[in-house]
Amino acid sequence: MGGLDRRKFLTGASLGAAGLAAGCDCAETCGVSAGPAAEGKTRKLKMVTTWPKNFPGVGDAADEVARRISVMSGGAITVDVFAAGELVGAFEAFDAVAGGAADFYQGAEYYWVGKSKAYPFFTAVPFGMTAAEIMAWVNHGGGQALWDELSAPFNVKAFQAGNTGHQMGGWFKREIRSLEDLKGLKVRMPGLGGDVLRRLGAAAIAIPGGEIYQALQSGAIDGTEWIGPWNDLAFGFYQEAPYYYGPGFHEPGAALGVGVNLDLWRDMDAREKLIVQTACEAANNDSLSRYNYFNAVALESLRRDKGVTPRPFPDDVMAAFARESKAVLEATAKSDPMAKRVYDSYRDAMAKLSAWGDISESPYMNIRREVYEI
Amino acid sequence: MGGLDRRKFLTGASLGAAGLAAGCDCAETCGVSAGPAAEGKTRKLKMVTTWPKNFPGVGDAADEVARRISVMSGGAITVDVFAAGELVGAFEAFDAVAGGAADFYQGAEYYWVGKSKAYPFFTAVPFGMTAAEIMAWVNHGGGQALWDELSAPFNVKAFQAGNTGHQMGGWFKREIRSLEDLKGLKVRMPGLGGDVLRRLGAAAIAIPGGEIYQALQSGAIDGTEWIGPWNDLAFGFYQEAPYYYGPGFHEPGAALGVGVNLDLWRDMDAREKLIVQTACEAANNDSLSRYNYFNAVALESLRRDKGVTPRPFPDDVMAAFARESKAVLEATAKSDPMAKRVYDSYRDAMAKLSAWGDISESPYMNIRREVYEI
Repeated sequence: MGGLDRRKFLTGASLGAAGLAAGCDCAETCGVSAGPAAEGKTRKLKMVTTWPKNFPGVGDAADEVARRISVMSGGAITVDVFAAGELVGAFEAFDAVAGGAADFYQGAEYYWVGKSKAYPFFTAVPFGMTAAEIMAWVNHGGGQALWDELSAPFNVKAFQAGNTGHQMGGWFKREIRSLEDLKGLKVRMPGLGGDVLRRLGAAAIAIPGGEIYQALQSGAIDGTEWIGPWNDLAFGFYQEAPYYYGPGFHEPGAALGVGVNLDLWRDMDAREKLIVQTACEAANNDSLSRYNYFNAVALESLRRDKGVTPRPFPDDVMAAFARESKAVLEATAKSDPMAKRVYDSYRDAMAKLSAWGDISESPYMNIRREVYEI
Repeated sequence: MGGLDRRKFLTGASLGAAGLAAGCDCAETCGVSAGPAAEGKTRKLKMVTTWPKNFPGVGDAADEVARRISVMSGGAITVDVFAAGELVGAFEAFDAVAGGAADFYQGAEYYWVGKSKAYPFFTAVPFGMTAAEIMAWVNHGGGQALWDELSAPFNVKAFQAGNTGHQMGGWFKREIRSLEDLKGLKVRMPGLGGDVLRRLGAAAIAIPGGEIYQALQSGAIDGTEWIGPWNDLAFGFYQEAPYYYGPGFHEPGAALGVGVNLDLWRDMDAREKLIVQTACEAANNDSLSRYNYFNAVALESLRRDKGVTPRPFPDDVMAAFARESKAVLEATAKSDPMAKRVYDSYRDAMAKLSAWGDISESPYMNIRREVYEI
C-alpha cells in the first residue's frame, strides 16, 4: 500500500503553533475519566482522508468511523468525510488536523514519516508484525502510550481504526528468478519497503495509487505493490504485470489510523471520547474482517477468471529482503531517539508474540493445510 | 475452553413462549434502519454471563461491552453484569435472555448446542477457523445472517463480542508419544473436541473450569484443555500436569458471543442498536488483542519461571485428530438441517480463507520465523 502523493505532503508542512504548544499528553487515558462537560453541546466535525472518494477497504474504514460516531451520538456529533483533495491533499491531512483546519484524519501513520521516523511502526514495517500482532502491541503491549507521546507534540491523538491484513509482494512484468533480477528494476514501493529494495539494487519509486496502472502500461515501472487481491483485482494490474508475488515482506498487516485534533479531544467529555474510541475499535474489527474475506474472494476470482497464479519470491530474494529489512529498521531506530524507543518496544512485543504464534496459530495453519482437506 | 456446568443447562431448559412466537428475524439488519423511536427512554438492563466473577479475558469482554453501552448511551442504557450463578446458572443464560428474565447473555455459543447443533460453528469447531477467519465469515461472509436466522426462533439476536485466539491442546500428566497413549485417557475436553477424543478411545469428560485443578490433583482426570497460556498459568495446571501440548486442534480461535433478547432488540431505535453492535465489535477487537498479548507474556513466564516446555502432539496424533474432526463435523451437519446449512457456509468460507492464508500470512510467518531473527 502506501504513497498517494508524497510531494504535496512534503511541501505542505505547516505545523500549527497550537500543536507545538500542546505539550506531551502521554498520561491521558481515553475512557471514562471525565473531561470538560460537553453535555448538550453539538459538534459538526470534518474528517479528511488520504484516499480517493468511496475507495473500498481503506476508504470504507473512514466512513464506518464517521457513521458510527454520528449515529451513536444521536447526531450530537456529525462527522463529514472528505476524500483526498476535497478539503486538503492526502498528505496535508495530518497538518490540517494538527492545526485545527480539520478535526479528524484517517489514513496510514507511515505517511507522517516526515514528522517523525517513529510513525511507520504504527502502520507496518518490513518483516514486522502481522495485523493480530500490531493490534496486541498497540492495545495491550504499550504501543498506544508511545503513540500518544509521539503525537501529542503535534496536537494529535490517534487510534487504530482499520487494517488491510497481509499485503502481497506485488505485480511484475517479468518473472523474478533470483536476486540478480532485482538489479535496476523500477518498482513502485513507497516507504521502508522501498528502502529495502534500493539496498538490493532496485529503483524504488513512490507514485500515487491512481497513477500506477498507467505507469505499468507505459513502462515507466516494471512492477508494483499495492494492497492485496481485493484492491489489486479492482485496479486490473494483472493485465499489465502478470507475475503476482506473495507473501509480501513490506506490510505484513497495515494498520489504518484515525487522528483527532488534541484540543478537540481534550474538550470532549468521557462519553464523547468513548464514542470516538469505540467507533475506531469497531472499524478496526470490521476492516480486518472485510479485507480478509474479500481478499479471499478476489484471490479465487484472480485464479479462476483471470488466470493468475500467485507465486512466492525465490528463497534467496526473501532472505535478502529479511536481512535488509532488519538493517533498515535498525537504521531508522538509530536516526531518532523516539523512533528508537518505539522500535525497542515494537521489537520486544514482536519477539513475545512470535514465540506465542510459533507454538499456536502458525503450526496449526501448517497442519491444517497439510493434513486436513477442507 | 468450554464447559462450566452443563448439567444446569440441560435441566434448566425452559424456552419462553414469547421466544417461540417471535418467528424468524433473518431479514432484520442491525444498523441505521430506524426501529421504534425510543428517544429519551431509559433502560436498566441485565447481562448474565457464563463465567465466574471478574474472570480475566472471557469475563473482561463482558465488562467491556456493558461499560461501553452504558457510557456511550450517556447513561440512558445501564447494563449490570452478573457472573454465573448470581442471577442464573452459566448454562441457563440463554433461556434467561430468550424468556426475558435477563436482557443480554455473554458466553460462548457452543454452550447452546442442546438448542441446535449449529451453535458450535459460531464459537469454534475442531480443525476449524482461526480467530481472523471466523471474524471474516461472520462479519462479511454470510455467517451473521445464518446466525440471526438460527437464533430468532429462540427470541435472541447475537453478535461476536470477544475471541480467545488460538487455544492450546492442553496439559497432561504423562507424555503422549503416540495414538496408543490416548486410549483410556481421561481428558477434560467438552463439546465437539471431546467427541473427537472419544472416537480415538479417550474418555472425554466435561467438568466446570473451577473444578479442573482438583480433578487433576485427585487423579480423576489425566489431562485437561482450558484456554491458552494466560488463563492456564493462572489456574496453575503446570503443577499437576507438566506436559503442555500445542498447537491445539479443538478451538483454533474461539469467538465469544453476546445475545440480546429479540423483543428488546426490536424495541431499540437505530442509535441504541448501533451502540450495542459497536460495543460488541469493539469488545471483539479488544479481547483478541488482549488474549494475544497476555498469552505471549504468560508463555514467556511459563517457560522462564515454571520450567514448562510446550511441545506439539506427535504427527500421527494430529493426523488422527484431523481425520476424526472432519468426521465429527460431517456427522453434526448430517444430524440437523440448520447445522448442515451453517456447516456448508462455514466450510465454503474456510476454504476460500485458507487459500488466501496459504499464500499470505501463513508462509510469511514461516519465513519470518526461519530467516528473520527478531
